Amino acid sequence: MQVCGTPYRTVWLDPEDQRCLRVINQSLLPHRFETLALYTPHDVARVISEMHIRGAGCIGVTAAYGMYLGACTAPQDSYHDYLHEVGALLTETRPTAVNLSWAVQRMLRVALSAHSLQMLQDRTRDEAQKIADEDVAHCRAIGEYGLPLIEEIYARTQKPVEILTHCNAGWLAFVDHGSATAPIYAAHRRGIPVHVWVDVTGPRNQGSRLTAWELLQEGVPHTIIADNTGGYLFQHNAIDMVITGADCVTRQGDAANKIGTYLKALAAREHSVPFYVALPSSTFDFSRTDGLTEIPIEKRGSHEVTYAYGENDEGVFSRVRIAPAESPAANWGFDVTPARFITELITERGRCVPTWENIRTLFPEASSAG
Amino acid sequence: MQVCGTPYRTVWLDPEDQRCLRVINQSLLPHRFETLALYTPHDVARVISEMHIRGAGCIGVTAAYGMYLGACTAPQDSYHDYLHEVGALLTETRPTAVNLSWAVQRMLRVALSAHSLQMLQDRTRDEAQKIADEDVAHCRAIGEYGLPLIEEIYARTQKPVEILTHCNAGWLAFVDHGSATAPIYAAHRRGIPVHVWVDVTGPRNQGSRLTAWELLQEGVPHTIIADNTGGYLFQHNAIDMVITGADCVTRQGDAANKIGTYLKALAAREHSVPFYVALPSSTFDFSRTDGLTEIPIEKRGSHEVTYAYGENDEGVFSRVRIAPAESPAANWGFDVTPARFITELITERGRCVPTWENIRTLFPEASSAG
Repeated sequence: MQVCGTPYRTVWLDPEDQRCLRVINQSLLPHRFETLALYTPHDVARVISEMHIRGAGCIGVTAAYGMYLGACTAPQDSYHDYLHEVGALLTETRPTAVNLSWAVQRMLRVALSAHSLQMLQDRTRDEAQKIADEDVAHCRAIGEYGLPLIEEIYARTQKPVEILTHCNAGWLAFVDHGSATAPIYAAHRRGIPVHVWVDVTGPRNQGSRLTAWELLQEGVPHTIIADNTGGYLFQHNAIDMVITGADCVTRQGDAANKIGTYLKALAAREHSVPFYVALPSSTFDFSRTDGLTEIPIEKRGSHEVTYAYGENDEGVFSRVRIAPAESPAANWGFDVTPARFITELITERGRCVPTWENIRTLFPEASSAG
Repeated sequence: MQVCGTPYRTVWLDPEDQRCLRVINQSLLPHRFETLALYTPHDVARVISEMHIRGAGCIGVTAAYGMYLGACTAPQDSYHDYLHEVGALLTETRPTAVNLSWAVQRMLRVALSAHSLQMLQDRTRDEAQKIADEDVAHCRAIGEYGLPLIEEIYARTQKPVEILTHCNAGWLAFVDHGSATAPIYAAHRRGIPVHVWVDVTGPRNQGSRLTAWELLQEGVPHTIIADNTGGYLFQHNAIDMVITGADCVTRQGDAANKIGTYLKALAAREHSVPFYVALPSSTFDFSRTDGLTEIPIEKRGSHEVTYAYGENDEGVFSRVRIAPAESPAANWGFDVTPARFITELITERGRCVPTWENIRTLFPEASSAG
């Protein structure tokens, strides 16, 4: 997607140096656009756990490239063992993100087929590239499958389609296009007027920092709102549809996504507003059924709740404390929206009402998982 | 209540100078405890509109004292007209806060009975003091009526009672005790173990800044959470009850309160957790019936959404921008929770399920309003 008019992906191998992975440093956005150069799997683990990069697809693809960097830095005599260690290291950085373990497992399977270090490096590089390209293709397909939902509302109302989203499930959360944003970008490009309500998404404010920035770069009309505002907008019929992403979706369609998603799903149901979850198949965890009890929820540091991070009036990236220094704070990163609150899932293979029957019809491979 | 072990009210006449009104500057909390000295009704209007003081009762009482300061600074020949102007000035500072217009109207009635400037000053001072003392007494009574709700849960579970609150409806929002916090403080003093989940309450973060600070001063166990977290806690049975305050409650029991309250009410109902709204009678607007269509909702500046305010690492009160400078933001201050989501109202005259029948039984004077 566009950054100041230049097309970018969130993660790519440096064309000048194929052992250097470049990623957009999301923790400086929207204030500064910088890329990070990563050379080792430990670099990759650090940028994932410190959330310089984040988002379901982006984490998965970056981890895949991290496995390739592992192959590039592996000892000659024990590269298979080393790659398993790298896989474990990467997997534990973000426990809720299923794309992460999915990508690591897929890379490990490819790695097993390599009979030399050179072959390992070649195959892991090719596989990581393939995962990145698939991510792009899947997000583009999500856009095409989600587009008719927006077109239908516009055909009916002949007014800008009002869409609420939470957190960032935009292209920054993937390699390109995004999941929740893909139908929005597709509609915008086709000239269908849309307006996006962007939840700030505390504590880390990925909505106001990242989603707003993305939409701005693409010229999509939007308004940032406090996370508390959605209920008011539903009550005043100011939302036509909700689209969010997901960090893990179970075989019965329960969706873990950024904390606060569930509150919006409750409100959408109360006001009979459709609630869509957009995801590529890599976000499914077909081995899990009941999201509430089976999806591990990451708990992060309390400083993310008690401090706000951004640019001060001098243009310096800094933080302010918004709570007494002595007060404890708790910081769960995700919540689970049970399938019954989700109108439809939007995937690269089409849309479906989230039930096990429907999911395995779209994804026959799900039947052999678990 | 206690500030570093010394009992305070939020607003009082300086004992050394009865023409000086002192208020706690809430916009510096929790970082610094300072009081402001106010001498004119314009000083009062400014601290209310800039939210150096805020909260239903505190706004009402401060406005009442503002009318007294108006009497102190009124021209000899037209003090009645002047006081009406002062009343209009104060009333328009915060459109949703019904305590404000209630206090101004009550002060104007008293003012009408004065036949000299001296009498006006004496009577408005006495009436403002009376309103302040009533506010204290009412909040104390709310504590007593709410206490059995907490006692009952503790008797049943024999575990610390888990209470969620939103925004600040503590003593800082009144003169003393608070509304939502009054039952909590009452239980804490009687040795009933309680634990309060404190919503940060963006955009202005009155929960993490003020409620957490209050609870800390009184030694009440609490944990600050992002506004997005409540749904997760409900899903995991971590909340026994919700208590919030209100800025305006209609004759049928619809309650306007800080934006985001409605989302928590929806979640409480979904999870069969009781949802209480605590308020003194001065917060009722018996002339309004349907809260959703009849209560005016204040819209504030977008900078409150796009900036976070607090203390930086150098201990300086400052702000950081958490959004692109070019992105628009919308900032409604309140939402309305319809009566059907409220388990009971807790008032100084007792509790009731919010219906017009019940409300007018507790408040017979409601029948003549409207």
